[in-house]
Amino acid sequence: MEVKSITEQKSLLDVLPPGKKARLHRLLFEFGPGNGTLMLLPIDQGIEHGPRDFFPNPASKDPEYQFKLAAEAGYSAIACQIGFAEKYYPDYAGQVPMILKVNGKTEVPPDNQAFSTTNASVEDAVRLGADAVGYTMYLGSPRQGEDLHQLKGVREDCDRYGMPLVVWAYPRGEDIEKVGGKGSFYAIDYAARMAMEMGADVVKINMPVINPEKDKDSPAPYNSGEFSQEDAIAHCVESAGRCLVVLSGGSKIDDEQLLQQTRFVMQAGGSGVIYGRNVWQREWSEALEVVEQIKEIMLSSVSRVP
Amino acid sequence: MEVKSITEQKSLLDVLPPGKKARLHRLLFEFGPGNGTLMLLPIDQGIEHGPRDFFPNPASKDPEYQFKLAAEAGYSAIACQIGFAEKYYPDYAGQVPMILKVNGKTEVPPDNQAFSTTNASVEDAVRLGADAVGYTMYLGSPRQGEDLHQLKGVREDCDRYGMPLVVWAYPRGEDIEKVGGKGSFYAIDYAARMAMEMGADVVKINMPVINPEKDKDSPAPYNSGEFSQEDAIAHCVESAGRCLVVLSGGSKIDDEQLLQQTRFVMQAGGSGVIYGRNVWQREWSEALEVVEQIKEIMLSSVSRVP
Amino acid sequence: MEVKSITEQKSLLDVLPPGKKARLHRLLFEFGPGNGTLMLLPIDQGIEHGPRDFFPNPASKDPEYQFKLAAEAGYSAIACQIGFAEKYYPDYAGQVPMILKVNGKTEVPPDNQAFSTTNASVEDAVRLGADAVGYTMYLGSPRQGEDLHQLKGVREDCDRYGMPLVVWAYPRGEDIEKVGGKGSFYAIDYAARMAMEMGADVVKINMPVINPEKDKDSPAPYNSGEFSQEDAIAHCVESAGRCLVVLSGGSKIDDEQLLQQTRFVMQAGGSGVIYGRNVWQREWSEALEVVEQIKEIMLSSVSRVP
Amino acid sequence: MEVKSITEQKSLLDVLPPGKKARLHRLLFEFGPGNGTLMLLPIDQGIEHGPRDFFPNPASKDPEYQFKLAAEAGYSAIACQIGFAEKYYPDYAGQVPMILKVNGKTEVPPDNQAFSTTNASVEDAVRLGADAVGYTMYLGSPRQGEDLHQLKGVREDCDRYGMPLVVWAYPRGEDIEKVGGKGSFYAIDYAARMAMEMGADVVKINMPVINPEKDKDSPAPYNSGEFSQEDAIAHCVESAGRCLVVLSGGSKIDDEQLLQQTRFVMQAGGSGVIYGRNVWQREWSEALEVVEQIKEIMLSSVSRVP
Amino acid sequence: MEVKSITEQKSLLDVLPPGKKARLHRLLFEFGPGNGTLMLLPIDQGIEHGPRDFFPNPASKDPEYQFKLAAEAGYSAIACQIGFAEKYYPDYAGQVPMILKVNGKTEVPPDNQAFSTTNASVEDAVRLGADAVGYTMYLGSPRQGEDLHQLKGVREDCDRYGMPLVVWAYPRGEDIEKVGGKGSFYAIDYAARMAMEMGADVVKINMPVINPEKDKDSPAPYNSGEFSQEDAIAHCVESAGRCLVVLSGGSKIDDEQLLQQTRFVMQAGGSGVIYGRNVWQREWSEALEVVEQIKEIMLSSVSRVP
Repeated sequence: MEVKSITEQKSLLDVLPPGKKARLHRLLFEFGPGNGTLMLLPIDQGIEHGPRDFFPNPASKDPEYQFKLAAEAGYSAIACQIGFAEKYYPDYAGQVPMILKVNGKTEVPPDNQAFSTTNASVEDAVRLGADAVGYTMYLGSPRQGEDLHQLKGVREDCDRYGMPLVVWAYPRGEDIEKVGGKGSFYAIDYAARMAMEMGADVVKINMPVINPEKDKDSPAPYNSGEFSQEDAIAHCVESAGRCLVVLSGGSKIDDEQLLQQTRFVMQAGGSGVIYGRNVWQREWSEALEVVEQIKEIMLSSVSRVP
Repeated sequence: MEVKSITEQKSLLDVLPPGKKARLHRLLFEFGPGNGTLMLLPIDQGIEHGPRDFFPNPASKDPEYQFKLAAEAGYSAIACQIGFAEKYYPDYAGQVPMILKVNGKTEVPPDNQAFSTTNASVEDAVRLGADAVGYTMYLGSPRQGEDLHQLKGVREDCDRYGMPLVVWAYPRGEDIEKVGGKGSFYAIDYAARMAMEMGADVVKINMPVINPEKDKDSPAPYNSGEFSQEDAIAHCVESAGRCLVVLSGGSKIDDEQLLQQTRFVMQAGGSGVIYGRNVWQREWSEALEVVEQIKEIMLSSVSRVP
Repeated sequence: MEVKSITEQKSLLDVLPPGKKARLHRLLFEFGPGNGTLMLLPIDQGIEHGPRDFFPNPASKDPEYQFKLAAEAGYSAIACQIGFAEKYYPDYAGQVPMILKVNGKTEVPPDNQAFSTTNASVEDAVRLGADAVGYTMYLGSPRQGEDLHQLKGVREDCDRYGMPLVVWAYPRGEDIEKVGGKGSFYAIDYAARMAMEMGADVVKINMPVINPEKDKDSPAPYNSGEFSQEDAIAHCVESAGRCLVVLSGGSKIDDEQLLQQTRFVMQAGGSGVIYGRNVWQREWSEALEVVEQIKEIMLSSVSRVP
Repeated sequence: MEVKSITEQKSLLDVLPPGKKARLHRLLFEFGPGNGTLMLLPIDQGIEHGPRDFFPNPASKDPEYQFKLAAEAGYSAIACQIGFAEKYYPDYAGQVPMILKVNGKTEVPPDNQAFSTTNASVEDAVRLGADAVGYTMYLGSPRQGEDLHQLKGVREDCDRYGMPLVVWAYPRGEDIEKVGGKGSFYAIDYAARMAMEMGADVVKINMPVINPEKDKDSPAPYNSGEFSQEDAIAHCVESAGRCLVVLSGGSKIDDEQLLQQTRFVMQAGGSGVIYGRNVWQREWSEALEVVEQIKEIMLSSVSRVP
Repeated sequence: MEVKSITEQKSLLDVLPPGKKARLHRLLFEFGPGNGTLMLLPIDQGIEHGPRDFFPNPASKDPEYQFKLAAEAGYSAIACQIGFAEKYYPDYAGQVPMILKVNGKTEVPPDNQAFSTTNASVEDAVRLGADAVGYTMYLGSPRQGEDLHQLKGVREDCDRYGMPLVVWAYPRGEDIEKVGGKGSFYAIDYAARMAMEMGADVVKINMPVINPEKDKDSPAPYNSGEFSQEDAIAHCVESAGRCLVVLSGGSKIDDEQLLQQTRFVMQAGGSGVIYGRNVWQREWSEALEVVEQIKEIMLSSVSRVP
């Protein structure tokens, strides 16, 4: 099944109000790889998975590691929770932009009824000099109603303060498992679209995984078996419309795969990547090295400048 | 069983306060087919069903498709969620009115306890130049109490800002299935009345389906087997009283059926239709064509000018 | 078991603050049968039971029918939901007082956990020229806590605006069924008292039904088998103390029974009746006729002028 | 096991801010038996148990009975719900102080998940001239979290307006039954302490009942079998620290027992009693008589003047 | 497995805003053992466990005992609930700082769904002269979402008023039991990190217990069996980053063990201890004695001055 972008998406920056535009411009052009791309460093794994993620590289347990990395390796922004924003970011303010993540949850209890309540506000983000706000939305969770209503409040505050809104768009919960699973093309395509319609400026998605066995449970045409991995990511980027799309990495994977999926998302019109463990679970020099490779691929594969 | 309108409903516009009147007048007389009719284009299927609805006509995945269609084919208004209102509507403001849908949900999880929380506000609608607000109310859901209370807040804001309120009046949930089902005459007639009593200005309903097997579970007289499809829609329009009624189309159906039900609702005193997939799941020229047919039938079957 | 009023209840009007007094005075003396009585016409069955209640008299489906009836037959007030208050009452303002019902629910889902959320506010009542506010309280429901807390807000607003508060005091829910049922003397006596203690000015109750078989499950002395129907209603009126009591009619019953229970409640010190289906499920002239009979009995049986 | 007060509790009045002190002073010294005692008359049984409590003395069904009794028999205060405070207290204002009870619930549904939502506010108490506010807290209920949070709001308002806070400290709910029951020494001792720590000024408790069979399920040392009834009440009073303790009576008991427990609580350092049914379920003269006996014992057994 | 601090944590005081710094400075340097340490005395066991904790030392039931102890033995601060803050702290204000605990719960009902609602506010703390606020967060509880959202409000108020925030970081609930239990290294390490990321200034943790049998259920590397008790506490302190860590004692343990764990936490970079029952469940002189021993060890083992 052939996939091609049906429309030339207009520049997002053209439709953003001035506050959002000024702030997002910093991430896209003044920091990071530039040329309208986004290379983001997330450091919220300490709450989402606990400190176990830091054992492969003990140095990474100290948040200084990620903040320093974000500043020195030239990231577009670092994404973190309120505790870091208040106690670690001050030393790096001005050197690297910050995305304040305003909700989050731990890996206990299980996420069959996933809902991530806010632990910080858009006003916190303004006060602390953040250039964007991050919000995790769980598509399809039984508690989705509460989620969307909470997102409304965050979105309204973003509109009020001219703060760009980055939505972590994650399919999740017991019902998603019945229609292909949280990593399926159907679910991620749906999440990308949902985030756009809910008012996101930037959408963060995982790489959709084509799995014929599980995709059978998805509705048509996702159950057709006709889509390649590359098709899938292209569709998802397109579903996000004018929103910018960044691809997340998840747990540490093979470097080649990491770079290839970076290329896929850029070629599909995406704006960049947000890789955490795949970067900071490495020793300092090794981390800098892989960042350089990612940057290169990003810049060489840009297909849409917002 | 003969059905005839027992009273000549007074004009809705006569009883509306100035803000509502001014805005609704635009939809009824200044845009769309005119003569007091409403031809609305909904583009909220991307969240209600996911992007799967766009595969039959890949061009429709880009929201530009629907916005352009609404403007060029002469719709009374386009109905969409906040994301589109902020990122796509600006290019069409002035060319076609907009109804901001302030709540919505996805097709996952299942809707046996349906409740659609708000993701936008009436203030958003005012700020973005919308001419009406849309709200989905689920009649009979176990969470109906929350729904009606939420609707109260939206209705009050509509009163405050003079914003017309369009209620998507949908029977839904596990208990409705026990009394005839969400598509039954009983349930839709009830929903139409409920929406009026809750303060709607315009009520959107589905075509009631006469199904003697399922209607047996409805209370008297709906279980009598004496009603035709045409009777049913006439009753539903009457149950909405002075509110304007628009008929929704649902998934794509046979053209003849589509046009016939359009005629039914207009003859029964309804004000128009709100067809989405039945229109934009077609190629551009074909879509324009069917819109013309719908318009013609609407205008030729007008039986009540509000 | 003999029942007689143990105290001469003081006039309610003597203890009401000026706003409440001025408004309630209109219903008691300036409109309706007068001499301190209340003859109320409810038109909320369209949401509580659905449009099925209108089929016995198709003309009644149009709210104009009830509004016109209330005005022409000389009712003390008409009680309705916000939709009617906004779209139908304007034509009758000044001709008949209005009680704005601020909560309500449908007959689907079942009411074993009954709770009726607000869909309008006391401010709406003030804005629309209502002379009282109506609230349905479900005594004994598992969700009673939410109910009483919500009622607190309505009662406080009534105090703030000097708006009389009419409480529909209905025993309801799965636990009530275990102690005699929603129609039992125990349950209705309890509901009348509860409404008074929660701050009602007028209490609406159903006629308690003496049913020895079910009353066995009520606590002593209600399970004694010593009470007549007449005793029961006398006790209930007394339990409401200084509050005015109006008797509701429920589904259509025999005329003689209707008139007899009207006499019972007046003789017991009640202030009137609130009959809906028993009146408007009749053709116009027949309706006017029964209203006259009710009025006569009310006026001839007055035993307490508030 | 010997029990003796380990510290001479300081006077509560010494640590109270002026508003609380002025108001509580009225109850302790200007009204009632005086000398720092509290003799309170509760009339909230009509909602907590329903009108069935009034049948033993039909005159008691009319709230005038209790108000008149409180005023004529020289009570420290009468405790009632908002309905009475608005419709009956005005006639007695100045003659007897009033404690506005701001929450309450009925005996249906069962109280295994007990939680008593507010139906009035501290502002109501101020407006109506009350000298204290009453709140029922259910120790150990599964809904305790909501309860404590609600109590926080009431306590804050009491601090804001200088209004004394009387906490009805009742162990309740399905989990309490597993550790000795709602009447056990463990549970009541816990409740007294909890009320003090939550900010009560006066704590109302039931008489703890030593029941070796049930106490076995309480934690050590309550399960030791070494405590007498007298020990128990002494411990409970001590657990309330500087708060004043009043003993409630519950359903009607033997006069001798009533007077003896009155003596116990006074000797243990308590401040008085709050007996309802034990008083007003008697004919007028008999009621006045028992009140005199209670007063005498209270005054002759005072062991701590606040 | 060797554990060593990978970074020299910067001083917390350096990044705190002035209000927090001024207040925390009092606890660290002006009161207590000094040199940047924290020796805290908690007296909230009366609500968390009930009065049963006071029987081993009856004198401890009177809150005066703990307040006097805190002042005379030279504590950094006493931590208590609102009732004590209002009724006992006034006598000690100026003599020992106070930490107002703003939430709490009883031991009934069981804590498989643990959530501790607020019963006091940061404004209360400001009004009453507290130098910090205490909050109990239950990591991993099914109600964690509510907890984090509530903590957000407390944290925001702390930011607003410059009030240091001490988080009682406790793993709790039915799901934690499935991954090693509330006392496991995994759970406590996670809790320490979580508290930091949520915005705590000081984190209170229990001593992690290495239990190979239960640790098998924890995720890698916690299930490896390679960690000693000393490793574990060192990791936990490190996970709290720049936040100060205080170790709690729990129920009364062996003195030697108590002193050893005190040494462990100080050597690992912790700031002190918060021992309650281990201190005040002793007679006065014995209590003073153990406090001296704790102080000595704390001061001699300081490895990080904030």
